[in-house]
Amino acid sequence: MTVVTHSASPRRAAYVPSADLVKDVLAGRAIAIARMISRAEEGYPEAAAALAELYRLGGKAHVIGITGVPGAGKSTLVSALIKAYAAGGHKVGVIAVDPSSPYSGGAILGDRVRMSETAAAGGAFVRSMATRGHLGGLTRATLQAVDVLDAAGYDPVIIETVGVGQDEVEVVTAAHTVVVLSAPGLGDDIQAIKAGILEIADIHAVSKCDKPEAAATVSALRGMLALGGERPGSRRAPPVLPVSAVSGERIGELKDAIGAHWAHLNESGERAERQRAMGRTRILGTARHLFQQKFQEAPETLERQIRAVAERRMDPAVAARALLGWEETP
Amino acid sequence: MTVVTHSASPRRAAYVPSADLVKDVLAGRAIAIARMISRAEEGYPEAAAALAELYRLGGKAHVIGITGVPGAGKSTLVSALIKAYAAGGHKVGVIAVDPSSPYSGGAILGDRVRMSETAAAGGAFVRSMATRGHLGGLTRATLQAVDVLDAAGYDPVIIETVGVGQDEVEVVTAAHTVVVLSAPGLGDDIQAIKAGILEIADIHAVSKCDKPEAAATVSALRGMLALGGERPGSRRAPPVLPVSAVSGERIGELKDAIGAHWAHLNESGERAERQRAMGRTRILGTARHLFQQKFQEAPETLERQIRAVAERRMDPAVAARALLGWEETP
Repeated sequence: MTVVTHSASPRRAAYVPSADLVKDVLAGRAIAIARMISRAEEGYPEAAAALAELYRLGGKAHVIGITGVPGAGKSTLVSALIKAYAAGGHKVGVIAVDPSSPYSGGAILGDRVRMSETAAAGGAFVRSMATRGHLGGLTRATLQAVDVLDAAGYDPVIIETVGVGQDEVEVVTAAHTVVVLSAPGLGDDIQAIKAGILEIADIHAVSKCDKPEAAATVSALRGMLALGGERPGSRRAPPVLPVSAVSGERIGELKDAIGAHWAHLNESGERAERQRAMGRTRILGTARHLFQQKFQEAPETLERQIRAVAERRMDPAVAARALLGWEETP
Repeated sequence: MTVVTHSASPRRAAYVPSADLVKDVLAGRAIAIARMISRAEEGYPEAAAALAELYRLGGKAHVIGITGVPGAGKSTLVSALIKAYAAGGHKVGVIAVDPSSPYSGGAILGDRVRMSETAAAGGAFVRSMATRGHLGGLTRATLQAVDVLDAAGYDPVIIETVGVGQDEVEVVTAAHTVVVLSAPGLGDDIQAIKAGILEIADIHAVSKCDKPEAAATVSALRGMLALGGERPGSRRAPPVLPVSAVSGERIGELKDAIGAHWAHLNESGERAERQRAMGRTRILGTARHLFQQKFQEAPETLERQIRAVAERRMDPAVAARALLGWEETP
């Protein structure tokens, strides 16, 4: 029997420094991966260097963004894709930034409903990100979670996000291949919201293709695309594919289209271009986040500067420069 | 006859350093004031120290924001107010941030139409600000222009802005007293736009009160305010005043209401509170502007960092910190 000598009372496991988690992440250990993603999510400064190292070691995975309005069937589609990729020997990583997605808080290896299927399918890693309380850091945290899965050998890594809101659109455009999922028979107002995300699609999928209304939705989408709804900068007209989570064949077609888009990016040199666009998004997003943190980390200093400016003892530019650390505080 | 000895060819006057303009601004010299405002508008770094000095020396003027949808009659109202204040011995400064306002580009002493009236009325200073190409710097530039007029002894200083768009709302809330002008008989869609600016009003004015529809607009506004449309943080229900630029009496009532609000701010201690809110707006606005400038001032550096991040030689946080000057470039 093992005797705990250093403490008789029950206590939490010691905090593992992030630097020490890196090799376990690279070895694909689920506990280390989950911890590292949590630290990215919370924005722990201690984890910054480890996340930076994982970023530099990553870059191999094909990152797929899947977006669409709530009710379009994104989570069902993602589950079907996990199975299809697993059948081909792929370990799939999923980061869900979708409050309506059914995955549990920190769930590992699949969601509550399809857990056994997914786990049996060769070890996917599925994780939901909190979408609240990030103060503009959602994009940063989500893409760092993608980095962790990428470095851990997951390929492809899927970002699932509801296509409403600036943050959600920003994060999904940081994928190599963006699939926009539409559902037949949704109301006009929802179609209007969706109109804003149509142009970011590399591939359009229409869910529930076993329903009779699906054909009309496919035609409507093809009509819109004929009017010039392509992703800016893309030289390839996005295909429109009817899918159904119950039909394995149609999911295979979507998987093939995603693969064809990835091959196209690699062969045409567009991958490097898109990588640069992602680099820009990440640098500016991180800078915005650091900027906001700067004002939050010293509220007393900010209040003191505000009073000094209000009483004309200091001018706003000097106060702003001092708060940004670009000038000595006078 | 004077001989120009140092150059025979016609040349532009030498650039007067901004530091040398300060005393002429304080003495109220129009040419120096106009130059200093232009430099604020262009965002010349050379002028920053002089503008900071003028900010610290100012703070005496009552700053009045006048806003309302295009067609409400703001410029007409401002001209009538200039006359009313001038009759009481005040030198009025006006900064118009309104693309529909009739003042000419850099006009001094009144607009094209009412120039003689205004000039005769004791030397108002009227200036339009460009509303394009400021990349978020409109608020900064406009409030620096207000600082210049304030330091030059103009009191009150009026900011005239069309109440549409975030920048325009931000700039007008940086006034001590906000007058929202409504016009009778405008369409429902315009009323809907206006709804967004109703809550920032300290005083409501309804123009064209000689028209029969004006009474209905006054009642509608009073009805909305009864439903809780007061300016947040204000402890004073905003009055609703019918005005007409052709009726001097009604303009006098508006001027009295503006004066009563200023007296209330000073007596209640709300002026200091509002001054702090203005200080916060100015610091954050200036910081945002500096932040954007930082990314524009070194486009080659940014492109180099983007390439390094895209090729995984650098991580986004290190790149962002380096660009923000918060870390040595590795």
